[in-house]
Amino acid sequence: MNMMNAAQKPHDRLAEALAEDMAAVNLMIRARMASEHAPRIPEVTAHLIEAGGKRLRPMLVLAAARLLGYAGPFHVHLAATVEFIHTATLLHDDVVDESARRRGRPTANLLWDNKSSVLVGDYLFARAFQLMVEPGNLRVLDILANASATIAEGEVLQLTAAQDLGTTEAIYLQVVRGKTAALFSAATESGAEIAGATAAQIKALFDYGDALGIAFQIVDDLLDYGGSAAVIGKNTGDDFRERKLTLPVIKAVAKANPEERVFWVRVIEKGQQDDGDLQHALSLMAKHGAMQAARADALAWAARAQTALDALPAHPLRDMLSDLAAYVVERIN
Amino acid sequence: MNMMNAAQKPHDRLAEALAEDMAAVNLMIRARMASEHAPRIPEVTAHLIEAGGKRLRPMLVLAAARLLGYAGPFHVHLAATVEFIHTATLLHDDVVDESARRRGRPTANLLWDNKSSVLVGDYLFARAFQLMVEPGNLRVLDILANASATIAEGEVLQLTAAQDLGTTEAIYLQVVRGKTAALFSAATESGAEIAGATAAQIKALFDYGDALGIAFQIVDDLLDYGGSAAVIGKNTGDDFRERKLTLPVIKAVAKANPEERVFWVRVIEKGQQDDGDLQHALSLMAKHGAMQAARADALAWAARAQTALDALPAHPLRDMLSDLAAYVVERIN
Repeated sequence: MNMMNAAQKPHDRLAEALAEDMAAVNLMIRARMASEHAPRIPEVTAHLIEAGGKRLRPMLVLAAARLLGYAGPFHVHLAATVEFIHTATLLHDDVVDESARRRGRPTANLLWDNKSSVLVGDYLFARAFQLMVEPGNLRVLDILANASATIAEGEVLQLTAAQDLGTTEAIYLQVVRGKTAALFSAATESGAEIAGATAAQIKALFDYGDALGIAFQIVDDLLDYGGSAAVIGKNTGDDFRERKLTLPVIKAVAKANPEERVFWVRVIEKGQQDDGDLQHALSLMAKHGAMQAARADALAWAARAQTALDALPAHPLRDMLSDLAAYVVERIN
Repeated sequence: MNMMNAAQKPHDRLAEALAEDMAAVNLMIRARMASEHAPRIPEVTAHLIEAGGKRLRPMLVLAAARLLGYAGPFHVHLAATVEFIHTATLLHDDVVDESARRRGRPTANLLWDNKSSVLVGDYLFARAFQLMVEPGNLRVLDILANASATIAEGEVLQLTAAQDLGTTEAIYLQVVRGKTAALFSAATESGAEIAGATAAQIKALFDYGDALGIAFQIVDDLLDYGGSAAVIGKNTGDDFRERKLTLPVIKAVAKANPEERVFWVRVIEKGQQDDGDLQHALSLMAKHGAMQAARADALAWAARAQTALDALPAHPLRDMLSDLAAYVVERIN
């Protein structure tokens, strides 16, 4: 992929259109992650925050506020807020995941890393909280408080749903809203709210973020099984090995005959996995059209995100958000 | 100690005077810790929250608001908020401590416990955040946001200060403000704020909570070495074994001669501890008057807490808060 193509991705066009705002967000992130008293904090956050990442969530805040005519300055605070919340959840996920990876690895420094990840994550949550109070908008605080609770609830729900073949699509959706969509929708909704948008516009941007986040996560879960074509690649099957109940598995389990069910119980619930089991899981998914059905769900959510945008005024940023929803599901075409 | 004596402790008199409010707080805590979607959450929180504890922090909120004439209802929200924040920090401390205890223990269920503690702690933080937004008071949000950051910063600072003989009394104070005093002072300050108190009264209640919290923690650290009499009891020396730089050690290290310094480097920095080392540490503290000096500091902070109350109107609750400050340091008389 050459530079020209890269520049044409919706994400990159958003970054270009919002370059000035994003520079302000990056400055604010660096300023607020510092700690006068505990220099360990920026050490730990630096590799996560300064590495950059796509900064998708802050861009959603900025795009929502700007397309509704907001002239600032508080969209920058809210954009930094959602990035801090995102980074804090990554740090805490590290603790959860690090524990899992312990089994095949030396545990040196694990103790120190766990402590730092938990406590620095807490610090970033607190900093996010300070930032979001500054605009003095109680509705925005409501949105972000509720999103925080949904995120935490979804993470806990994921714990109890893991390795449980009784996990339904409704529970999966709840988990996905928690781990991904809640922060997307809080980003777009709070951006609209700070811009003083109408109730209908705020609702539209909530719906957009919610549907975009769900589409995004379903695609991620599909790609973990090689995408809708089920091509096995380097990282294919991580979710399978971790016995996660993601949408393709849930769909295949729902249609399993008794013999197939015995297979799923063994590999997912009992965790007894042998060579060839991933391949067999993929063949069962193919047999029941699970990948295609999950892909159809992702496309429907992306379409729902685009439809939500109809309630908003015409604006180049609105078009980019629409293209972004299309792009998210293109990854599995 | 008989029932009569127990009923006369300042803490119990506060509980009696605030019984109706505390019943409302307990109801709110139970209602808000529930989770429609993730039943695992109340399972994990129940043993912490329903076990009760002294509920000291919520009582500080209620006492501050009531002694300034507040008639409700939002002091109940704030009282539940500080208890949730306290419980969340306990859960996260468990992760940090559990990792430490791993060394001498079977690690079964550690993985699950770590996950649950981190994520349910996050859930309680989010619930606290929702609760504190409800009164719609931005100054209260400021107070609690700043306290959250101070708490997290203090916890991280404690990580880096541990096992470091360069830790000064100023750093110790910073850590103590984070781990204990910040939530005490946020409790009393936010109680005053919600009551619509004057700036001077709000400042007075902040100062009271801050000084009370510091006195409380110094006493705790002294008791870990057996109190000012340095009597070795069942749990004496936990901080010594964990190589924590608490006030008595900091004071003894500051006056150490070269030979004593070699001892402290070995037992605290290098962690090479043998039988008799705790006893030797205690004798060095006694030699330099470290316990007595730390005790004098605790008494001075308790006196400062009491003096702060002078700015407040006469009220039975004010007297109970004053008695509470005296009682906290009585434990080491």
